[in-house]
Amino acid sequence: MTQTTPQSGTTWFAPEEMDAIRERLPILYVDAVPVRVDPLGLVTAVGLLLRVTGQGAITRALVSGRVLYHERVRSAVIRHIEKDLGPLALPRVPTSPQPFTIAEYFPTPGVTPFHDPRQHAVSLAYVVPVEGDCEPQQDALEFNWFSPAEARQPRLLSEMTGGQDVLLLQALAHLGQ
Amino acid sequence: MTQTTPQSGTTWFAPEEMDAIRERLPILYVDAVPVRVDPLGLVTAVGLLLRVTGQGAITRALVSGRVLYHERVRSAVIRHIEKDLGPLALPRVPTSPQPFTIAEYFPTPGVTPFHDPRQHAVSLAYVVPVEGDCEPQQDALEFNWFSPAEARQPRLLSEMTGGQDVLLLQALAHLGQ
Amino acid sequence: MTQTTPQSGTTWFAPEEMDAIRERLPILYVDAVPVRVDPLGLVTAVGLLLRVTGQGAITRALVSGRVLYHERVRSAVIRHIEKDLGPLALPRVPTSPQPFTIAEYFPTPGVTPFHDPRQHAVSLAYVVPVEGDCEPQQDALEFNWFSPAEARQPRLLSEMTGGQDVLLLQALAHLGQ
Amino acid sequence: MTQTTPQSGTTWFAPEEMDAIRERLPILYVDAVPVRVDPLGLVTAVGLLLRVTGQGAITRALVSGRVLYHERVRSAVIRHIEKDLGPLALPRVPTSPQPFTIAEYFPTPGVTPFHDPRQHAVSLAYVVPVEGDCEPQQDALEFNWFSPAEARQPRLLSEMTGGQDVLLLQALAHLGQ
Repeated sequence: MTQTTPQSGTTWFAPEEMDAIRERLPILYVDAVPVRVDPLGLVTAVGLLLRVTGQGAITRALVSGRVLYHERVRSAVIRHIEKDLGPLALPRVPTSPQPFTIAEYFPTPGVTPFHDPRQHAVSLAYVVPVEGDCEPQQDALEFNWFSPAEARQPRLLSEMTGGQDVLLLQALAHLGQ
Repeated sequence: MTQTTPQSGTTWFAPEEMDAIRERLPILYVDAVPVRVDPLGLVTAVGLLLRVTGQGAITRALVSGRVLYHERVRSAVIRHIEKDLGPLALPRVPTSPQPFTIAEYFPTPGVTPFHDPRQHAVSLAYVVPVEGDCEPQQDALEFNWFSPAEARQPRLLSEMTGGQDVLLLQALAHLGQ
Repeated sequence: MTQTTPQSGTTWFAPEEMDAIRERLPILYVDAVPVRVDPLGLVTAVGLLLRVTGQGAITRALVSGRVLYHERVRSAVIRHIEKDLGPLALPRVPTSPQPFTIAEYFPTPGVTPFHDPRQHAVSLAYVVPVEGDCEPQQDALEFNWFSPAEARQPRLLSEMTGGQDVLLLQALAHLGQ
Repeated sequence: MTQTTPQSGTTWFAPEEMDAIRERLPILYVDAVPVRVDPLGLVTAVGLLLRVTGQGAITRALVSGRVLYHERVRSAVIRHIEKDLGPLALPRVPTSPQPFTIAEYFPTPGVTPFHDPRQHAVSLAYVVPVEGDCEPQQDALEFNWFSPAEARQPRLLSEMTGGQDVLLLQALAHLGQ
């Protein structure tokens, strides 16, 4: 099977076009939960980004982003991990395309546990072991590892928005934690 | 959690707008494999639609269609099953939102096993037991049940297009067949 | 595929033999999480048994039990549900044999979240919609339905033993709750 | 969570005891499908053992074996891979304990696609990327890598016994192939 990269150039939408589409079509996303694993494959740490929102609030976040036209889902996972954690993160994308769950982010709060005021996004969620060095990029202040027990603390979970705390707990449950 | 229906009215795209979007954004789909089950939960039959294409070819097809803006994935599964099999089909949508796989339909053949010349569609695939009466609707000629053994016959599989034969075999494998 | 029932008669172990085996071999179990679902397939309630232990303690429990020689796993799930909830429970065993997780009950606490002082048991865990009337049988005092929100309450979870609270939370996570 | 190794010493069964148990209790197994993956996580090759049976027949086989008392399932997967492929295989056990399917090997042919004349074994099946050097050990003649397309050839599949051909196809389907 040939591999593929997203097509670029004249085919992209202008920002105002994308805004119009976001109001009328569900947008395909991926969410990745970066983890460190021990030799048995047990997760020893979960990685979260620390960001400042436009409103000046501090939030913790999973790696998350859009799937582009003509881009494979697994390529999108790698692209977003490298965009957020740097080119040396060495992500190991799962062999199966089956996500451990999907997160349906609705613009209306309360439809599902997931909320995105900008759009209706449906995200395919994957746990992704990363083995290399992770450095926060661009708009992130920090990237930190937490033990599974730390990641379940209400205080940490309360720093996540849009329902990503629920998604993180779902990931930990899927991992048998 | 409140339930929701897709929003309609002035927010829909005109057909020519939708065509433009299909060329530049992956479109979210669902694929459903309708099945009959026995009291043990073992699949006894798989249901396929028989259709005539615009080119006059006869094809077998799974239930498949787009997820609309502000529509839950599980609502989209039910809507497409009722649209194709009628209002008395009584689909039992899985309790878990996790699809058994995803099918990435590329406009370029050969990127994945799945191909759709019109668009880049990413489909969440579910096995859905249906218990009621199924009648082909609208553009379908027939709806037929096949035993798992019949569904694996190369002749039947060759009547499916776009890689849905691969998806059907993946569903049967997931079911332990 | 022919169906099968566990073989009985002279092939069973005497209780003392079974005790000896339990000390030296992992025993195969199933855990079932009984649920009520709405027409969209969303879980509206989770069912738990109320039992008195030999020590007089009150505990909440999932449906759980051993897989017998020559018994299919899906038959074992149905048998234990009917044994605990009565013959009118009408369980709908999942179409796929894939459990949503496995629970490894070790006789030594702390190896995994799951503990069984009597044995090393490995349990295949399934979410099972039941549609009929459920009545506690034999050794159970009650069988009660809880909303997903109630089922997550620390007080209720604290009434479960052996790690079944963890398993219940894993089931809810798998269900997208 | 502390890790654990199977307990040895006086607690093992003598061979004749084990034979008696095999006739009256389902035995817990693991099946592992060794794979090579590319940087996108796509499977490029599947590994199969070549063995001579007691009857002199040549067979292809997955990595397979029993879970021991007080042994974690993921430890059993690693132990059997290292036993069959050598200490330098570097298996990457999945992060989630959820098997992609279970294989129920019955002593009676035809109950399921899986058959083991010696016993009723229930196997948890995992796809396991291995990154190191693989050398056939002990009773295996060879260990060979096959592309996914080669692995699906009827001729190769016909060299597998007990239903492992079905399990291999289920693994490939799970991998999106």
